[in-house]
Amino acid sequence: MPTGHTVDRTAVDGTTNQAHASAALHLDRIRGDVDAALGQFMDAQAGRASDDCLPPLVEVIRGFVTGGKRLRPLFCVCGWVAAGGDVATPAVFRVGAALELFHAFALIHDDVMDASAYRRGAPTVHRLLAERAGEHSGVATAQRFGESAAILVGDICLVWSDELLHDSGVSPERLSDSRRLLNAMRTEIMAGQYLDVETGESDLAAELDRAWRVIRHKTAAYTVARPLQIGAALAGGEDALLQACDAYGYPLGEAFQLRDDLLGVFGNPSVTGKSDLDDLRDGKRTVLVTLARQQATPDQSAALDELYGDPELDERGAARLREVIRQTGAEDVVEDMIRVRRDRALEALEGAPMTEPARRSLAELAETATRRQR
Amino acid sequence: MPTGHTVDRTAVDGTTNQAHASAALHLDRIRGDVDAALGQFMDAQAGRASDDCLPPLVEVIRGFVTGGKRLRPLFCVCGWVAAGGDVATPAVFRVGAALELFHAFALIHDDVMDASAYRRGAPTVHRLLAERAGEHSGVATAQRFGESAAILVGDICLVWSDELLHDSGVSPERLSDSRRLLNAMRTEIMAGQYLDVETGESDLAAELDRAWRVIRHKTAAYTVARPLQIGAALAGGEDALLQACDAYGYPLGEAFQLRDDLLGVFGNPSVTGKSDLDDLRDGKRTVLVTLARQQATPDQSAALDELYGDPELDERGAARLREVIRQTGAEDVVEDMIRVRRDRALEALEGAPMTEPARRSLAELAETATRRQR
Repeated sequence: MPTGHTVDRTAVDGTTNQAHASAALHLDRIRGDVDAALGQFMDAQAGRASDDCLPPLVEVIRGFVTGGKRLRPLFCVCGWVAAGGDVATPAVFRVGAALELFHAFALIHDDVMDASAYRRGAPTVHRLLAERAGEHSGVATAQRFGESAAILVGDICLVWSDELLHDSGVSPERLSDSRRLLNAMRTEIMAGQYLDVETGESDLAAELDRAWRVIRHKTAAYTVARPLQIGAALAGGEDALLQACDAYGYPLGEAFQLRDDLLGVFGNPSVTGKSDLDDLRDGKRTVLVTLARQQATPDQSAALDELYGDPELDERGAARLREVIRQTGAEDVVEDMIRVRRDRALEALEGAPMTEPARRSLAELAETATRRQR
Repeated sequence: MPTGHTVDRTAVDGTTNQAHASAALHLDRIRGDVDAALGQFMDAQAGRASDDCLPPLVEVIRGFVTGGKRLRPLFCVCGWVAAGGDVATPAVFRVGAALELFHAFALIHDDVMDASAYRRGAPTVHRLLAERAGEHSGVATAQRFGESAAILVGDICLVWSDELLHDSGVSPERLSDSRRLLNAMRTEIMAGQYLDVETGESDLAAELDRAWRVIRHKTAAYTVARPLQIGAALAGGEDALLQACDAYGYPLGEAFQLRDDLLGVFGNPSVTGKSDLDDLRDGKRTVLVTLARQQATPDQSAALDELYGDPELDERGAARLREVIRQTGAEDVVEDMIRVRRDRALEALEGAPMTEPARRSLAELAETATRRQR
């Protein structure tokens, strides 16, 4: 059994991840423990299903959550350890698993809204469900069903995330203390996604402002700062620590999303799990591309208008588009932004009132989340 | 100020709804108090918005929740009072308001899935948002935006419902006791809605089974039994009371939905708030219509196949359809089913271990929820 190592080791030989007081956490082991908690919860849901339609949906969710990077659970566990929590506490892996289920909800709904075809190298949930229904109904009906069922599967992930959080074994008082942060996180990602789907014309300065707000809500708060703070609050972390989580989390989260946007344009599909044309065809209104537009010559501007967001874009057009974005200088500007923000995040760790293993692990995560190849 | 009466009265003249120990509750006053709790929560959300995009969405939600029948909050407050809770407790109105926000989530998402045009006599949320976006974008883009934004507005209602519940002022222990029931309710309605959108051919017996499962999950449990049980559990109700809530709630909830289905076919649009053609054009697979199909002669069967679910159905076709459903005898069978179930619900109240005001109010609600004209 590849999971549950941390806890098993404690029981068997008395050591934990914190046996060496200053060593970084064993992140892969934490991922395994979170996966185990997710798996156990899914088993329980299948077992207590109140209707026969539920167990197959449990399997859809189980399939979907396989293969995520578990960034939010990792930051949550780091926050917990930062505040002095013992990493060998099953409850914190269940909280991490709850955040991962919440993330599944967010991704499944985002994919419906964006009509995305692939996620994590596999068909998106709405497409998967449409294909199954398509075996005995027409294409339009199947597509409609796929979207409806995916909205519902997302809804189920959201309410189950809450269920798992509350049954995690963390004390009701601590859960109650952390609710302010959880509430903020959940509303922030909704706001970020709303800004992301919002239509309407605006000038480039307004577009850039919008792109930064999306990054702050949808990635900086949601992926890094809030999970870290929630973990810290659950272990009784004081305000000074929560502020340090903020000072580390926001710049790092921004850097992480800027890297993701760069990978969407210049990345390797075998690494990112999606076609290297997807982001270009979608025409996602990123900081990178908005900066490119701001700095473009009239010719470059025309090329961006023509190619970026063209659903029929081919490899030749993509190569031209990449060249133009590079020539505007936007790629270099964004690389600089990433560097500055990663450094700011690392600085925030120095002298922060947190345990040594958490500090080391957060420094490690800052590197892996923002480096060129992921 | 039409709201907050119950609490105000307590403060001013020392009386409460329970001043006359055996009198039924003042349901309109409870509705007012729930509305006030909802309004206060919306004000608070607008006030603490973390992004400028949120206050307009608060107003969309505020508009949507205006005018509901508040059945779930009423049943919740009845459950609370049934277990001996004081009706003049602000916390229970906030819990009721949380259930109403959850209901807003469910309806907004259902309307997206069903592509419904009207709800509560007004355009559905996805259409409202599409119309606003349409002012500065094309029709297809606006429609897509409307659906995406409505999914998000529904998601916001769901997470805010949770927020309101946890900030209601009910003790963490009692909240924790009632979570099992809340969890069950939330999963049940998802299962019910999934069965409702599921495609695929099946025989009439399987269709009837499916229709009954939808009624049990989506209405009986969700509208009556669970809100009642949640209210009772929050006031410390024992198992015997929770079982009585079940014995009353399921048959009544079934009767309520059967009445709703009859109104969808034969009802008066000025009462139901939707066109009297909507349900016929949607071709909703109800118990009523499935029974009609089972009992239909070949000619009646052909008419049902042709007319029921025809999106272009006109008044003439609707009149013919109503006549056919009547002639199959299905209307009478369903009226009988309603009567039997309402009686069973009323019987369950006799001797149930609950307070007199709750018993009387639940008897009153059983009448209003199932009578011919609503």
